[in-house]
Amino acid sequence: MSEPAAQATSALATRNAEREGGARFRRPSLRAMGLAPGKLARLKRLLYAHGPGGGTLLVLPIDQGLEHGPVDFFANPDSLDPSYQYQLARDGRFSAIALHIGLAEKYFHEYAGEVPLILKLNGKTAIPPDAQAFSPLTGTVEDAVRLGADAVGYTVYVGSPAQDRDFRQLLDVRQDADRFGLPLVVWAYPRGEAIAKKGGREGLYAIDYAARVALELGADVVKVNYPVASEKDSESPPPYNALRLGPMAAFRKVVESAGRTLVLVSGGEKISDPELLAKVRSSMDAGATGIIFGRNMWQRPREEALRLTREIHAIFREYAQPA
Amino acid sequence: MSEPAAQATSALATRNAEREGGARFRRPSLRAMGLAPGKLARLKRLLYAHGPGGGTLLVLPIDQGLEHGPVDFFANPDSLDPSYQYQLARDGRFSAIALHIGLAEKYFHEYAGEVPLILKLNGKTAIPPDAQAFSPLTGTVEDAVRLGADAVGYTVYVGSPAQDRDFRQLLDVRQDADRFGLPLVVWAYPRGEAIAKKGGREGLYAIDYAARVALELGADVVKVNYPVASEKDSESPPPYNALRLGPMAAFRKVVESAGRTLVLVSGGEKISDPELLAKVRSSMDAGATGIIFGRNMWQRPREEALRLTREIHAIFREYAQPA
Amino acid sequence: MSEPAAQATSALATRNAEREGGARFRRPSLRAMGLAPGKLARLKRLLYAHGPGGGTLLVLPIDQGLEHGPVDFFANPDSLDPSYQYQLARDGRFSAIALHIGLAEKYFHEYAGEVPLILKLNGKTAIPPDAQAFSPLTGTVEDAVRLGADAVGYTVYVGSPAQDRDFRQLLDVRQDADRFGLPLVVWAYPRGEAIAKKGGREGLYAIDYAARVALELGADVVKVNYPVASEKDSESPPPYNALRLGPMAAFRKVVESAGRTLVLVSGGEKISDPELLAKVRSSMDAGATGIIFGRNMWQRPREEALRLTREIHAIFREYAQPA
Amino acid sequence: MSEPAAQATSALATRNAEREGGARFRRPSLRAMGLAPGKLARLKRLLYAHGPGGGTLLVLPIDQGLEHGPVDFFANPDSLDPSYQYQLARDGRFSAIALHIGLAEKYFHEYAGEVPLILKLNGKTAIPPDAQAFSPLTGTVEDAVRLGADAVGYTVYVGSPAQDRDFRQLLDVRQDADRFGLPLVVWAYPRGEAIAKKGGREGLYAIDYAARVALELGADVVKVNYPVASEKDSESPPPYNALRLGPMAAFRKVVESAGRTLVLVSGGEKISDPELLAKVRSSMDAGATGIIFGRNMWQRPREEALRLTREIHAIFREYAQPA
Amino acid sequence: MSEPAAQATSALATRNAEREGGARFRRPSLRAMGLAPGKLARLKRLLYAHGPGGGTLLVLPIDQGLEHGPVDFFANPDSLDPSYQYQLARDGRFSAIALHIGLAEKYFHEYAGEVPLILKLNGKTAIPPDAQAFSPLTGTVEDAVRLGADAVGYTVYVGSPAQDRDFRQLLDVRQDADRFGLPLVVWAYPRGEAIAKKGGREGLYAIDYAARVALELGADVVKVNYPVASEKDSESPPPYNALRLGPMAAFRKVVESAGRTLVLVSGGEKISDPELLAKVRSSMDAGATGIIFGRNMWQRPREEALRLTREIHAIFREYAQPA
Repeated sequence: MSEPAAQATSALATRNAEREGGARFRRPSLRAMGLAPGKLARLKRLLYAHGPGGGTLLVLPIDQGLEHGPVDFFANPDSLDPSYQYQLARDGRFSAIALHIGLAEKYFHEYAGEVPLILKLNGKTAIPPDAQAFSPLTGTVEDAVRLGADAVGYTVYVGSPAQDRDFRQLLDVRQDADRFGLPLVVWAYPRGEAIAKKGGREGLYAIDYAARVALELGADVVKVNYPVASEKDSESPPPYNALRLGPMAAFRKVVESAGRTLVLVSGGEKISDPELLAKVRSSMDAGATGIIFGRNMWQRPREEALRLTREIHAIFREYAQPA
Repeated sequence: MSEPAAQATSALATRNAEREGGARFRRPSLRAMGLAPGKLARLKRLLYAHGPGGGTLLVLPIDQGLEHGPVDFFANPDSLDPSYQYQLARDGRFSAIALHIGLAEKYFHEYAGEVPLILKLNGKTAIPPDAQAFSPLTGTVEDAVRLGADAVGYTVYVGSPAQDRDFRQLLDVRQDADRFGLPLVVWAYPRGEAIAKKGGREGLYAIDYAARVALELGADVVKVNYPVASEKDSESPPPYNALRLGPMAAFRKVVESAGRTLVLVSGGEKISDPELLAKVRSSMDAGATGIIFGRNMWQRPREEALRLTREIHAIFREYAQPA
Repeated sequence: MSEPAAQATSALATRNAEREGGARFRRPSLRAMGLAPGKLARLKRLLYAHGPGGGTLLVLPIDQGLEHGPVDFFANPDSLDPSYQYQLARDGRFSAIALHIGLAEKYFHEYAGEVPLILKLNGKTAIPPDAQAFSPLTGTVEDAVRLGADAVGYTVYVGSPAQDRDFRQLLDVRQDADRFGLPLVVWAYPRGEAIAKKGGREGLYAIDYAARVALELGADVVKVNYPVASEKDSESPPPYNALRLGPMAAFRKVVESAGRTLVLVSGGEKISDPELLAKVRSSMDAGATGIIFGRNMWQRPREEALRLTREIHAIFREYAQPA
Repeated sequence: MSEPAAQATSALATRNAEREGGARFRRPSLRAMGLAPGKLARLKRLLYAHGPGGGTLLVLPIDQGLEHGPVDFFANPDSLDPSYQYQLARDGRFSAIALHIGLAEKYFHEYAGEVPLILKLNGKTAIPPDAQAFSPLTGTVEDAVRLGADAVGYTVYVGSPAQDRDFRQLLDVRQDADRFGLPLVVWAYPRGEAIAKKGGREGLYAIDYAARVALELGADVVKVNYPVASEKDSESPPPYNALRLGPMAAFRKVVESAGRTLVLVSGGEKISDPELLAKVRSSMDAGATGIIFGRNMWQRPREEALRLTREIHAIFREYAQPA
Repeated sequence: MSEPAAQATSALATRNAEREGGARFRRPSLRAMGLAPGKLARLKRLLYAHGPGGGTLLVLPIDQGLEHGPVDFFANPDSLDPSYQYQLARDGRFSAIALHIGLAEKYFHEYAGEVPLILKLNGKTAIPPDAQAFSPLTGTVEDAVRLGADAVGYTVYVGSPAQDRDFRQLLDVRQDADRFGLPLVVWAYPRGEAIAKKGGREGLYAIDYAARVALELGADVVKVNYPVASEKDSESPPPYNALRLGPMAAFRKVVESAGRTLVLVSGGEKISDPELLAKVRSSMDAGATGIIFGRNMWQRPREEALRLTREIHAIFREYAQPA
């Protein structure tokens, strides 16, 4: 480990230890976030009035039909019908369901008032190559207002060659969200060949940077992946290339870079129950506000998913925090 | 057949068998679609007040003059005059005729009130290469309102390198359609070299994905081609590459992926009468809402086309379903 | 000749013979075109109140200074001064003069009320290569309204790689023309390397397609070149590659593809008097509404041009037709 | 000299001789230009109420700091301060000073009412390559109105591969200028590799075409360079490649191509006093309305520039012409 | 040294010596800048009512999280939390803090009224290559007004191949700033391969040009880097390639090119205390209005930074100047 990296690693460890006594970290409070009334009202609804409550977020996304195609639904054929996810979100008492305009317009009316809605505003298919990753708009903040959604979602590809257009598009969404008082949830994904050469999209450098970008550009909530240590880290810019942080310290670093933007941890591909619950707990310890699990929920048999949800609720209760 | 593919194939077969007793599948009801009043009023007009009725759709498209050029009219020289198709739509009691602004402005006034109009809002010629397939707008939802159309049509090229622009353009059309209460019919065509490498544009993977994209992006009706099994399927992403579904099971899969978006089956190139009628019946069995046959209608001699239309009407009556 | 081509050739010949008894073809009537009041009033002015009248159009274009540069004026140095063309249009009783904003703003005021104006709304220079042919806007429909023009002109390059942008731009113009009630005259030119590989820009395939595109996209009048049979026709898509149509049959085909869009024949480079008059007569026989001759007029000595104009007037009187 | 070129050369010579008796040519009158009241009022102010008057224009441009960088100011270090040029324009009684928004907002307030302002609305730096020459907007017509400018300036690169965008941008400026009644001065510069292959940017073909483009696109005044005969002329399109015109005949040709658009002659790089005064006189003889000299003015010592200006005033008085 | 370069070098030296007697240069006064009332009120607040006052500016930027990523915060882990910089700006009595929308919306509410805000309106990440350097908008002037900011910041990459888009985007920002009366601070950075071939981004040619561009395009304040003499200067265009100016003479040249646009000197990477204070003093001597130091402030331990700030305040008091 290089000198500066060793110092940085140690400094991070020391601060974490000193500040928090090895225990869990507090999430930003809604009060500290300086939210306008509309955003505050809606975020309170998501964080306290629905789902596990206590200031936590448990989100069920169902945008994979667009992002990956119907291929993701083979593992659980019932999940091809969007009603399945709506019912799972309702019965599992999720804080919100996140999906695109079509699934909102055609299905939400049956669950309105029971499941809060995060309307995803941009997306793309997995068919063309990802080199210039960019997700065009599929809906607008006005659509979200009209449908009674409680937040909007936007995917930004940090580091993509199309980053210019992406930031510009995000600006418009962010301004409309400010105008209408809707919380803005940003899916912050590192992408593109430049990031591939700097440790890859799963490395700490990439995810840490993405979290900060979300904060800088005005996200109220950011969804990030859990950083994965790998050999490719050595290609990250210093001192990241020589940091030796454990998984939770690395994730804590990301949470800190996000500042007063609340952090949601992504589920990613399906993992085992114990792995999943451990991921939930360590994320919350590190200061996450909640999790967003899609395939890990609806690719499981319904009863299994509901049971898992109850366990997550139980864990989240330990992390309850006043508004 | 790979293990997961075999399971998927079997799961689909079992569900279909269990749920429906081997019989036909029901189409989504207008009620379930959660439509706003304007869309509901106009879709009811198309599905129940004109054409075969009973919740079915029989659409005559005449956009080939733009998409293919006058070349398609040589088979039946009378068909070069758009009045021919208008009269065929009227005399054959089609649910609607679908065409571009020029044919609407110059001819529809003679058939207004007799033949409902679906105004196609984008298109292109067959002259430049298709590699970056994208259809620019040729009309707007406001044009459709002004002309008294009952729906608008939009062609999206799923998987095209120009997909970004396409989704963005579709967003604007979809929003205007929501604003004015016009049903949105999406021609969902897989296109581009990426799809060519993943089983081709006629494979189940491509068409299944395209149907889902239409649902996700807010289509009320989607026009798809019937998937065609071929050797190229082996290049599709798993488990599609190893699925062994018969034609109707494959099409049923597509209908399910479209969810509460009504499905229209495309006619494509001219086929024989028995083939055509078999295609109609199996499509309806699989849950389609109707068919959209152009060259298969107006490339036939007029009397032959009208006779065929009557046979389709008769078949559709078997599939009548309340609103 | 291939079997289908032979059939197509014969079918066209038979229909023409049967329908019209070998005599001239009728042009679309203004009534059949279903025009809104503003367009109707202005087209009547052009077709009946000015110029040769009787439903014909004789248009003098002077956009070559932009499209080709001042080079076209060397043949008749007086023609460099736009006053020359205005006076020719007035003294030769043309139905209208067609030109760009600059020549309209600086000269039309002296001829207003005497010579109707078609304001050309897009154009380009001949300097950069033509591979991505596209003419940006140089004026708007609002300019035309402000100046008291009776129609607007737009050049679309059918088949150009820039066709996307072109169609989109034309959409805006067409909508404004609908909004303000100004007739839309479309210069429909096949262009680009794709058309070069399909028989070239002067072949029947290209011109026939271009005429149909103008109809489909909402032109009220389309200017086309006369198709020229050549060896390159063999590279056209079937059955065009094997059709054996005489010049007038070929042009009649184009007129039919244009449907209820009135057809203007382009003059092109300067030709001899007898050739010109023969072209006029055969165009009118085939159903054209008129001609648009520029260099063939103002590259001639003034008196010669005026004499020729009188002869065209005389021919047009034979083709007079009620509104 | 080729036959057609010889004829063209001779025709131009004869017309010039016949029409004007070898004497100077008249400029277009404001009356003939058909100007709207706002443009007329402002052009009269520039042509008659300020500067040399009598219908002439003497313009001092100071856009070189943007177009070339501060490098142009080394020759006369005082000229780096924009106050220098403002004072020179005032003390030398120029008709107007032409510059960009920053120099207008920060300095014009001290000279308002004393020196008329032409606000340049687009520009670029000399740093990136010129192959796709295009000058983006730096200000708008509304800025000009707000600041009390009497005209706006726009640079168009005729023949550049970016010509499409340029014409479109010019359209917007031209329309706003029409809307607010501000005269439009167009800097018409041939640019790009296509023009380099057709005799170069300084050849008669290029400049003659550029002048005509300005007229066609609606310029009220056009700034052109004086054409320079060279060996490269042989690469111009015929008959330009073989014309043998003297400098003044060539420039007269350009003035004629500009029609009723007034012509300003560009100064270009610094030249000697006698050369400069000869250029002024021959330009006016050929029908120019005035000159626009920048470096030739402010790269000279102040007193020398003022003396030269007085000499130009004296020459211009010989060319006075009523409005 | 070439003849013209020697003359230029000498001329600059002489003028500086003559005019100012070797002493410091005066900054432009707010009065001379001709500011509209809103800009004047806000600039006075920044220059006189907050921070060191007396017409000077001491700005703390914290946009590095976006521009460089969280990497810059390792040197001082506390600085990862934006509250750190806000407190430093408040406690060190900076004239303003400069940052992006996210840090403004989430943190400024706690310091409003204590620390003036410069809202940065565009930015990018360091991940994709810099060859086409362009910073898309991340906020708007309206955001700045809504948040109570006292100025807006914009980064323009002078010489970048994307300069076209950049100038156009800056135009919109500049116009909104004029409309709402917010001072416009321009970060003027030379970028792109063309500048790399002309002496590089740190050379006098590049920085001098960039300063002038800011003036020409309407900046009220420009942030520039201190030019660095190097071997690459020999590749600059003449006479820059042969100038032999000392550091302060070079910087004075830049200040003069900026005219009535106030100049802020950039801190750049962290340097030692004596170096930093010498840089401050020589900048002010050369006519700078102030400095903008980020990493040089918050990468230092807090107390050290505050002590340094007090020393800068003391220096600035020597340069106080009435409004």
